[in-house]
Amino acid sequence: MTVQDVQSFVAGQWLEPDSGARDIADAATGKIIARAGRDRLDTTAMIDHSVTVGSPALKAMTFHDRARMLKALALYLQDHKQVLYGLSFSTGATQKDHLIDVDGGIGTMLVIASKGRREMPDSHVYLDGGTEMLSRKGSFLGQHVCTPLHGVAVHINAFNFPVWGMLEKLAPTLLAGMPAIVKPATATCYVTEACVRLMLQSGILPDGTIQLVTGGTGDLLDRLGSQDVVSFTGSADTAFKLRSAPTLLRESVRFVAEQDSLNASILGNDAVPGTPEFDIFIKEVHREMTTKTGQKCTAIRRIIVPDSQVDAVISAVSSKLADTTIGDPRDPKTRMGALVSQSQRRDVLEKANALGQEAERVFGDPDAFEVQGADAENGAFLPPMLYHCADPDHATTVHDTEAFGPVATVMGYRDIDHAISLVNKGAGSLVASVITHDPDVAREVVMGAGAYHGRLYFNNRDSMDEATGHGSPLPHMVHGGPGRAGGGEELGGVRGVLHYMQRTAVQGSPDILTKVTGQWVPGSKTVKGPEHPFRRTFHDLQIGESLTTSERQVSIEDIETFAHFTGDTFYAHMDEDAALRNPFFPGRVAHGYLLLSFAAGLFVDPDEGPVLANTGLNTLRFQQPVSAGDSIHVHLTVKKKTPRTDTYGEVRWHVLIRNQKGETVAEYELLTMNAYEAAA
Amino acid sequence: MTVQDVQSFVAGQWLEPDSGARDIADAATGKIIARAGRDRLDTTAMIDHSVTVGSPALKAMTFHDRARMLKALALYLQDHKQVLYGLSFSTGATQKDHLIDVDGGIGTMLVIASKGRREMPDSHVYLDGGTEMLSRKGSFLGQHVCTPLHGVAVHINAFNFPVWGMLEKLAPTLLAGMPAIVKPATATCYVTEACVRLMLQSGILPDGTIQLVTGGTGDLLDRLGSQDVVSFTGSADTAFKLRSAPTLLRESVRFVAEQDSLNASILGNDAVPGTPEFDIFIKEVHREMTTKTGQKCTAIRRIIVPDSQVDAVISAVSSKLADTTIGDPRDPKTRMGALVSQSQRRDVLEKANALGQEAERVFGDPDAFEVQGADAENGAFLPPMLYHCADPDHATTVHDTEAFGPVATVMGYRDIDHAISLVNKGAGSLVASVITHDPDVAREVVMGAGAYHGRLYFNNRDSMDEATGHGSPLPHMVHGGPGRAGGGEELGGVRGVLHYMQRTAVQGSPDILTKVTGQWVPGSKTVKGPEHPFRRTFHDLQIGESLTTSERQVSIEDIETFAHFTGDTFYAHMDEDAALRNPFFPGRVAHGYLLLSFAAGLFVDPDEGPVLANTGLNTLRFQQPVSAGDSIHVHLTVKKKTPRTDTYGEVRWHVLIRNQKGETVAEYELLTMNAYEAAA
Repeated sequence: MTVQDVQSFVAGQWLEPDSGARDIADAATGKIIARAGRDRLDTTAMIDHSVTVGSPALKAMTFHDRARMLKALALYLQDHKQVLYGLSFSTGATQKDHLIDVDGGIGTMLVIASKGRREMPDSHVYLDGGTEMLSRKGSFLGQHVCTPLHGVAVHINAFNFPVWGMLEKLAPTLLAGMPAIVKPATATCYVTEACVRLMLQSGILPDGTIQLVTGGTGDLLDRLGSQDVVSFTGSADTAFKLRSAPTLLRESVRFVAEQDSLNASILGNDAVPGTPEFDIFIKEVHREMTTKTGQKCTAIRRIIVPDSQVDAVISAVSSKLADTTIGDPRDPKTRMGALVSQSQRRDVLEKANALGQEAERVFGDPDAFEVQGADAENGAFLPPMLYHCADPDHATTVHDTEAFGPVATVMGYRDIDHAISLVNKGAGSLVASVITHDPDVAREVVMGAGAYHGRLYFNNRDSMDEATGHGSPLPHMVHGGPGRAGGGEELGGVRGVLHYMQRTAVQGSPDILTKVTGQWVPGSKTVKGPEHPFRRTFHDLQIGESLTTSERQVSIEDIETFAHFTGDTFYAHMDEDAALRNPFFPGRVAHGYLLLSFAAGLFVDPDEGPVLANTGLNTLRFQQPVSAGDSIHVHLTVKKKTPRTDTYGEVRWHVLIRNQKGETVAEYELLTMNAYEAAA
Repeated sequence: MTVQDVQSFVAGQWLEPDSGARDIADAATGKIIARAGRDRLDTTAMIDHSVTVGSPALKAMTFHDRARMLKALALYLQDHKQVLYGLSFSTGATQKDHLIDVDGGIGTMLVIASKGRREMPDSHVYLDGGTEMLSRKGSFLGQHVCTPLHGVAVHINAFNFPVWGMLEKLAPTLLAGMPAIVKPATATCYVTEACVRLMLQSGILPDGTIQLVTGGTGDLLDRLGSQDVVSFTGSADTAFKLRSAPTLLRESVRFVAEQDSLNASILGNDAVPGTPEFDIFIKEVHREMTTKTGQKCTAIRRIIVPDSQVDAVISAVSSKLADTTIGDPRDPKTRMGALVSQSQRRDVLEKANALGQEAERVFGDPDAFEVQGADAENGAFLPPMLYHCADPDHATTVHDTEAFGPVATVMGYRDIDHAISLVNKGAGSLVASVITHDPDVAREVVMGAGAYHGRLYFNNRDSMDEATGHGSPLPHMVHGGPGRAGGGEELGGVRGVLHYMQRTAVQGSPDILTKVTGQWVPGSKTVKGPEHPFRRTFHDLQIGESLTTSERQVSIEDIETFAHFTGDTFYAHMDEDAALRNPFFPGRVAHGYLLLSFAAGLFVDPDEGPVLANTGLNTLRFQQPVSAGDSIHVHLTVKKKTPRTDTYGEVRWHVLIRNQKGETVAEYELLTMNAYEAAA
């Protein structure tokens, strides 16, 4: 078997390992399969390449451009993932594990791409929150905007997910418009290298948007500044060392960390044996202990169950663990493969021994277990090991020492407050789960333990068919946690993208804000188009293009007709005395829906044209009642345009209904779909 | 004159200074007026008091309770602010400066209180973003929620705003539900102490919610953990020292910093002498240089103007500076008072001398200036000093050295790209302003410089009457900046509150999420009330209380009647062939507004009752067209309740219009105002 030279991709060049290289062994056989690392790394050239080549290319693209790029990249990887599967067995992972790493990484990229299209604009500035009224007359307003940082994102990834770990950071970074330097953990960097090769080979990424360092990063971190980001996943000790770097502290370099975590799962008091919840609990605990051989930052380390269920849980979990086939990761019958390396195996054993000081081992013996079809001597195998801690209130190790392998500790609780106090003893974790069918328990855990957890996962009979699992970070939801878990956040949809952007509070006149945001802001100039805006295609319509309609008087007959036609004979429209008693009305008033309908009657151009449909309406507020005899007219202004398909896009209109005194009667945002081309 | 003993408020006790006290001098006279500080500080008792007394009291309150508390506190301070004015003169500040510090602080608290009422729920859990659909059938959903951290917020404040500096941090902290330990800078801590006394005296704050350390903090920071927050305002050197503390790094303690900042103001190319913009620019620069004697973290330090305008700007600014009366802060005729202390004066002179290596002083001589009615010898007076840097591209000191006094440097730019490169040389700042009437310039600055700035302020003739000033952080907008400015954020409405809360990704079934959030989540159980929901008062209505209406068939006559009545004869409703050509419709369809109106007709109970008005509607989406012959019915469910006044509150209803096949035709959120009591 040849030893693979794992390369680095530096400033557009693939570089061989040099004398600084380290050997990498196959997890299951112990044989050296690869080497990686360099003594010499031109970090100045790397940063320069990112900032001068990658960053401008990405910044020139809109959020939608970048989202489309991510989607194409994910689909390309989807088509070529067999390569990654093939290599990944050497990390000790089974085919099921690959689904989490490889398919999970691709899926994450697809979701982020889709959120980019749906939740971000097809332009260069992301708006955070709404317009803030900073003045009485509206001539001075505020709007928070986000623009990409000008530097480079350095991603320092953990060994356990060589593909997902890269893609879950890369997708938000590229969507934000920032280039990345990826530094995978050496133990599994050959899988990451293969994935980077695929991405480059696809031709989809602009030059300079991604670089790869296999091996050490040299003085890279010392060269970073305020426009750069470090995103780290790994041990608390390494995180502490990195975040203490004076350059990072002095330059306020953003440091996102996801580190150790003593995740817990709580069995609700209601979830006694025989309930679906008890079975769900056992299944989730077993899965979290054994998937990826327990090398998951979100794996369950602490199993917190009612005192009365301790024995039942130990017995049920042990029974499932006993059925878990350990062995050759390439064998489809294997349920649990090897740890990534002998050194990782030693580390897990050491931590497990430490747990043994406070807890009794009730399942699994590292000195006596069966390994199927693999080299038990040289492979980094371990059995799942279950501990029971009888006095968790006075224990410390079980709450602060993460054995990063198939190891977990059962502990009993008296009542839900006690369970909350135990789960919080982790001093900050990525995720805690509660298996309960009692929503009150869920509420109590959120109030009592939310502050200690980045994610709280609830499952029961209602959600079991679709629940995604305690251990699965989803791209929609924040991944990260306070305290021991590192205090960082990743993912969470657009939230994760904002880590790579600067939020800036912009203040100015409406015209300034309209130009800056690319959206028409109330109070800005409007322009009258050459014809009715409904005659204009999506592309013709300009931001700020506006229509002011003629007036229509609302009569008492209109109100009565509308009431009887629709069936809405609410007293405020029909009963003068009752309406007068109401704090909002000066007597009988027109229906809000009558006003909306008359407004449409005023602004709609009826003939077939580029407007395809009214698809919805946002933040409608009725501000002033309309009585019989009042007249209304409408101002319709193009606020925002977003391409949606190959043939049409969404137009958001600002609509203002005013009365004869010029007072605003109602204000809302109207959504239409408009064709790019005029109908044939 | 007696020397005041400035006390600390520790674990519910006022404590005198002890042998560790330091003397504090009056800024304008140099006389010792106070002493503060203790050798002994029981930091364990302080943290314990916050966590066991203050935190539970605050957590028991809803966001609205806390917002009301803040409003009452602000109004109390408003009534007693003369005390603070009286003391503040000794800090060197004029009455105009007090308006910024005292009234500005009170105003900030009022805005945060108001945002708490308007933008946060009357409950204990804040929802961040919408519900995430994590499953195909909707049995497993996600929702980000925020709950208060369980620890204490340590606020380390700068000397320049002893009141505002405290209140702008305190308001979001208390609103979040976290107690605070306030540590003002010693030089002006007697003003802060007086303000804390007022707040305690008001009786409005629960015990344990605020403690005060005048003097050093002892080992306080070493005792913090993952549930605590440190929020610091001050110098970059002190920030670096604090954030390097191993305990903070190891425990991932949140550290919010607002430190040095070389804020700039850019004069647009269009803003030549004779334009309103030129005058605005000169006025803003002068104000920023002289207000608070230039001791403002947001003050303009770099004046970036077109090369052709350098002379004109120097001349105009100098002329206004020459008219600036310096002297006794108590004298209403004084425009600029003293620096806070002799040591601050020495520091400013030292930094100004450093600037002198790269820039020429063109106005102000510290050795020759007039001081009116005050002790020029012992008071910490300085004149405003204006520098001109002829080669800003090769300068470093003017871009990285903040002389924290009435000092600024003019520099010329060639074109807007050059101006952007100069402004970014500050390597991260709190605010940059641009005075221009050209929105394209604004857009370019946002794209080119946004990533380096926490705030970008634009002003011109359109906004000048209402603009709030380059230097004013507003509670609505984020205050803070990247890099040199510390990388922190404060304020920004609810954003600033979230610094004191943990965001947690909650996943579970709809019923679980409904209970956790206190809002009805689609897919959760509904309950049928004892009578029509429109007959039920605000307090009677339960979350999840629901009404399913009877069906109504929509006929072609309905569509035609509606079209002719409203005037909305859009082709999709009236022209079968044209509608068929449309990608959305199967032929002529009913108007969206007809469906909304018929829906109201189906669910409204017409008689006078607790429902007072339909005030609006959110996120309406038409999902399925309705053709003649289809029938619709409505599901109306109570989603959320928010008290608004003494007599009524807002009810948000989830509305689903379905057709005869059970398909969703439209979905929206309906807003009504409902009386607490049934009508008499």
